[in-house]
Amino acid sequence: SHYRLSDSTRTGHSSFSPRTHACAELRPKDVGEEVTLCGWVQYRRHDLFVILRDFSGLVQLLIPQDESLVHLKSSLCGLPLESVVKVTGEVIHRPPGQENKAMATGAIEVSVRSLEVLNECKQLPFEIKDCVKKSESLRMQYRYLDLRSPQMQSNLRLRSQLVMKMREYLCNIHGFIDVETPTLFKRTPGGAREFLVPSREPGRFYSLPQSPQQFKQLLMVAGLDRYFQVARCYRDEGSKPDRQPEFTQVDIEMSFVDQMGIQTLVEGLIQHCWPEKMGPVSLPFPSLTYAEAMREYGVDKPDTRFGMKLVDVTEALYGTEVGFLRDAVTHPEGCVQAICVPGGAKHLQNKDLEFIRQTAKTHFNQELSLVVLKADGSWKSPLSKHLPDSVKQQLLQKTHAEAGDLLLLAAGAAERVRPLLGKVRLQCAELLEAQGVAVRDPSAFHFLWVVDFPLFLPREEDPEQLESAHHPFTAPHPDDTHLLYSQPDKVRSQHYDLVLNGSEIGGGSIRIHRASMQQYVLENVLKEDASLLSHLMEALDSGAPPHGGIALGLDRLVAIMVGAPSIRDVIAFPKSFRGHDLMSGAPDFASEAELRPYHISVNLPAEDRGVRGN
Amino acid sequence: SHYRLSDSTRTGHSSFSPRTHACAELRPKDVGEEVTLCGWVQYRRHDLFVILRDFSGLVQLLIPQDESLVHLKSSLCGLPLESVVKVTGEVIHRPPGQENKAMATGAIEVSVRSLEVLNECKQLPFEIKDCVKKSESLRMQYRYLDLRSPQMQSNLRLRSQLVMKMREYLCNIHGFIDVETPTLFKRTPGGAREFLVPSREPGRFYSLPQSPQQFKQLLMVAGLDRYFQVARCYRDEGSKPDRQPEFTQVDIEMSFVDQMGIQTLVEGLIQHCWPEKMGPVSLPFPSLTYAEAMREYGVDKPDTRFGMKLVDVTEALYGTEVGFLRDAVTHPEGCVQAICVPGGAKHLQNKDLEFIRQTAKTHFNQELSLVVLKADGSWKSPLSKHLPDSVKQQLLQKTHAEAGDLLLLAAGAAERVRPLLGKVRLQCAELLEAQGVAVRDPSAFHFLWVVDFPLFLPREEDPEQLESAHHPFTAPHPDDTHLLYSQPDKVRSQHYDLVLNGSEIGGGSIRIHRASMQQYVLENVLKEDASLLSHLMEALDSGAPPHGGIALGLDRLVAIMVGAPSIRDVIAFPKSFRGHDLMSGAPDFASEAELRPYHISVNLPAEDRGVRGN
Repeated sequence: SHYRLSDSTRTGHSSFSPRTHACAELRPKDVGEEVTLCGWVQYRRHDLFVILRDFSGLVQLLIPQDESLVHLKSSLCGLPLESVVKVTGEVIHRPPGQENKAMATGAIEVSVRSLEVLNECKQLPFEIKDCVKKSESLRMQYRYLDLRSPQMQSNLRLRSQLVMKMREYLCNIHGFIDVETPTLFKRTPGGAREFLVPSREPGRFYSLPQSPQQFKQLLMVAGLDRYFQVARCYRDEGSKPDRQPEFTQVDIEMSFVDQMGIQTLVEGLIQHCWPEKMGPVSLPFPSLTYAEAMREYGVDKPDTRFGMKLVDVTEALYGTEVGFLRDAVTHPEGCVQAICVPGGAKHLQNKDLEFIRQTAKTHFNQELSLVVLKADGSWKSPLSKHLPDSVKQQLLQKTHAEAGDLLLLAAGAAERVRPLLGKVRLQCAELLEAQGVAVRDPSAFHFLWVVDFPLFLPREEDPEQLESAHHPFTAPHPDDTHLLYSQPDKVRSQHYDLVLNGSEIGGGSIRIHRASMQQYVLENVLKEDASLLSHLMEALDSGAPPHGGIALGLDRLVAIMVGAPSIRDVIAFPKSFRGHDLMSGAPDFASEAELRPYHISVNLPAEDRGVRGN
Repeated sequence: SHYRLSDSTRTGHSSFSPRTHACAELRPKDVGEEVTLCGWVQYRRHDLFVILRDFSGLVQLLIPQDESLVHLKSSLCGLPLESVVKVTGEVIHRPPGQENKAMATGAIEVSVRSLEVLNECKQLPFEIKDCVKKSESLRMQYRYLDLRSPQMQSNLRLRSQLVMKMREYLCNIHGFIDVETPTLFKRTPGGAREFLVPSREPGRFYSLPQSPQQFKQLLMVAGLDRYFQVARCYRDEGSKPDRQPEFTQVDIEMSFVDQMGIQTLVEGLIQHCWPEKMGPVSLPFPSLTYAEAMREYGVDKPDTRFGMKLVDVTEALYGTEVGFLRDAVTHPEGCVQAICVPGGAKHLQNKDLEFIRQTAKTHFNQELSLVVLKADGSWKSPLSKHLPDSVKQQLLQKTHAEAGDLLLLAAGAAERVRPLLGKVRLQCAELLEAQGVAVRDPSAFHFLWVVDFPLFLPREEDPEQLESAHHPFTAPHPDDTHLLYSQPDKVRSQHYDLVLNGSEIGGGSIRIHRASMQQYVLENVLKEDASLLSHLMEALDSGAPPHGGIALGLDRLVAIMVGAPSIRDVIAFPKSFRGHDLMSGAPDFASEAELRPYHISVNLPAEDRGVRGN
């Protein structure tokens, strides 16, 4: 039962290895076999048992108690936890009554006959099993210990398997080519969030791109037909929560395809890579237009695992005398929107309600009216005495609100009121869940397409000017193309977002493939200097096929799948909140000699100069 | 025969597409079928035929000549070459005698019934078919046109398929996990060839790593067991020939493995991914020790597709009176080495011989003695009259030289003479091939392991000091471990190189897994500051398993496989010789405003200041 490491016919997890099995593979069918295992000493019980761990899980070793093997016993009992050993022994049944049903290998144990200590563990900053309870920074500093936890092992393994399945689908089933595109590239005009990389030519810099957008389009112009890449992308955002300076997207582009084609491809991709144990994915994914999503959920990435949709109650309030409501219903663009939080009156505390009210104030500078529907059906609300019963009845009817529910009302312009209620809707779900109310099924995965986005939006700094809602290469919706030249603000795009449980996990579009239209968009609509993209315009004029694609955010997708609170839990070596690698101490100071070849020098802020003496 | 783009049950190259077939798929069995094709107008013949091209290849379209379809004819005849069209038509047999056996679709043609012009080609900087003859810089500037060539299409497709097969082998057959490691990392001490990336923290820089070496070892400490990654790596080398600032390596690391285990894994990997049409790969690969390679080929990456091995002829010259030979044979470390170039006398010109002599002089500052063995067996050489016939006979015997061959002799210290003859050996092969002599089979692939490298080498700047032959994490050969503490210069390593046709395509090693040995190597042998790697030492002390791995140079491997003269031919968007992207103009100047967030400024050399006015 001992293998040569160079046995080329063996496959599986133990090929090329002295072990015969992975620890967690052993079962009663292996009883009687002599096995060799390699792993870490997880813990020890009463000098009788050692629990051995490897990537696959745990197995119990029986420490021999007979006199002839006393050296073996003393070695095993003297080993510090987390030491690395190779053991050989016989698989035996556990004595009746001593089986551990919670353990995959709990019916057997390995009676140790020989031991080789491969590396003794000398020091640990903390006990491995408590690792997850440690501070985030300690976990990051000793990431190689943190990664020994079953959860992190399983996250990284699932990620690897998921990507492998995606590749099989794209490459083997649908004829895509995996093409690597450069990460040392030219700065995008206005690309404020791109890292710079100094070159050895004075004053010249590469830039780390935020996505392979230009390259994927050029590959279509090149006739590659179907491209994909699991692409490393970069974004310098300082410290936004749960963002990483480098992240991974599954980047896809096809020629001769329309929006439905890309969406169907992606649905098939998700279905193909979805782990069986996580239940089936049913196709096609539901779809909402941007307008519908905003109207019903107040957000363009709705969490459709629960209701509490926005309800327009403007009509019910046409005759109202309440000042702020009347202002809203009489204003041409005003409205009153409501959501009903089922059980909200019953389960939410006063401080929860205050928190919701504060959100409206601080994030949206808006008033939110709360109606607590008491158990007896009576209204607890400042509005109560100002609304006639008939109006109250209408409100209850339209929102399907009942005794014990909470009703939230906001009045004003739709584009202000809806995002407010969209945010509050999510907060209510969280607050209810914190009270133990089941709002969203944690094992449910709700995919959703959001389509028909506007192609352009008013610029924040100058609302008379338009900017691209996504990027300037997005094609207009075929039904709206004629509007591009007359009312560009009315044009819908062929952009689509893929949303999972309320998070955007992908976005893409059909691209403009004619240079004349691209030029018109850049110069006439966006008022940008098209010459900065002259190589792309030339490319479109040299026989560009119709094309489109999508990019899926792999880190986010995997994080949602494994239920991780942060994408840091599905990345082997993530950066901290402030963009630091806490293990190695990156980023770090560079000496003048190291900067010299790049013709740059550091301008330290005044207060730092004394300290660093540069 | 028309598909909805959203038909999720279709697979293959035409799923999600309006086309029914790829152009080059059509065969006589399809005759009578109505097909829809999408592609580029490659060329037109006599207003009778259009040759349509897509990623798969070419097909001939028959332009309808009947009066009723005159608009279709005029459209097809008026289209500029490289325009993009969708055509529908019937597959018909070509008339007898008009088949084209050189074309995969040469037995059929498509009688066009309808046409949609998807994009008209407006301008081309050159004709596509002549692209390869254009200057390298024009090819790079219009890379999207260059990539339309069948050769580039095939190179990128082969690369994608090769990597896919490697992933299947590693992931699906041998239980490896694909883990992405960061590229924004800490500067390696002394890592002079690492690009810097300024962070928003004054004076602090990330560094783009040359390989994931530290991460892969830490993943083994983390118990991931088997890691691989198709990893983007970075190296700032200015302008070395055929190097790219970013390149790709297939990076592999395993726990509980020895050198034979890794070598067998890699042999299986190559065999698994090897394209069938390129013939079988036979295993195991032959192996040479470093000492053998240097002795027989004068180089540590021998091209074993041909002979002309180095022969030690010192003994034959013991009694010689020729000054420089006598000096060599009497010096304790001296020797005389020879190679026989079969047919060299017959095929090589005087200028070739002069070129070889010059190489020895300029590159090695050494004299090379040439013996031209004329057709009648007589010697043409300055040495001829100084060597007795018996010595000549011995030389011929030892080198197996015959009439018509060329004999090359070099005398001196072995470590100087061997590299000289190693280089000259390759030059002779090239010179003979330039004369039409078959020396190396261009379709042959000779894999070779080179093993038992020295662990340390004398530092170039201070030969009393040692430096790592590869890197400081390489483990000593198990037979030599005891010498580490007494004669480190004598220690062989557990490093191995994989060589293909004389190019190094991979290298790896078993790593040191004990902190005490790692510390000893860093501090006592290499005299380096071990504290800079304190996180690695801590990791080794916290239960590091024995581990080892390898990195394969993907660009080089694919280039050799497809017979490309440069790795630029197997990379979609390579940088030019000087590290420029000629399409976009990267690297480019950055404004002061763009540099400000990174607290850096540019120091222009004096002569540039006036011009840029910075």
